[in-house]
Amino acid sequence: MNNHAVLDRSFLALSHPVRRAIVERLVDGPTTVGAASSGLGVSKPAVTKHLKVLEGAGVVSRTVSGRTHVLRLEPRSLREVSEWLELHRSLWEAKFEAVERHLAEADEQEVPG
Amino acid sequence: MNNHAVLDRSFLALSHPVRRAIVERLVDGPTTVGAASSGLGVSKPAVTKHLKVLEGAGVVSRTVSGRTHVLRLEPRSLREVSEWLELHRSLWEAKFEAVERHLAEADEQEVPG
Repeated sequence: MNNHAVLDRSFLALSHPVRRAIVERLVDGPTTVGAASSGLGVSKPAVTKHLKVLEGAGVVSRTVSGRTHVLRLEPRSLREVSEWLELHRSLWEAKFEAVERHLAEADEQEVPG
Repeated sequence: MNNHAVLDRSFLALSHPVRRAIVERLVDGPTTVGAASSGLGVSKPAVTKHLKVLEGAGVVSRTVSGRTHVLRLEPRSLREVSEWLELHRSLWEAKFEAVERHLAEADEQEVPG
């Protein structure tokens, strides 16, 4: 996958609350499919579909050993998404603060001495 | 929108390269629809659709004055997405580093003195 595709799929993977809940659980370390998805109020076929999206995006990987499927978070895609966001957000916030400062200064100059 | 819905829509909004390109342009400050979308190789109806997704997510807002439509980035949704990611990524990386450290220590102990 090129960088665009990684970002496309990763953002899409994180756009559903069930998939974010699974990621939140995997933050504590690798775990079984059962443990990663229990109590979310989602059917097994739905879990399978959501995991396919997460795995397709490279956000989650799966190790199969016998009948046990272990899921783990993969750092690369989360890091790329995070870096894209942080870069643009920080540029934007710097811009925003400059405008705010400018407005504040203009305000001060309007106050009669 | 509750917090879940904000995250759902914001992640979805950022999952397309054309929409990310528009956000990247708006980082430099508010601009017209034409300037935000020119040269992206996208038809006007497609731009309209992408802007609808960005505006629906609250990532972008629009000010109409006469025939001029000005787009600007809105900080809240980008900030929420960024905070969700940073929180989970930093927890995960701390975990990952602890495991790496543990493995490195185990390696060292295996090296014959």
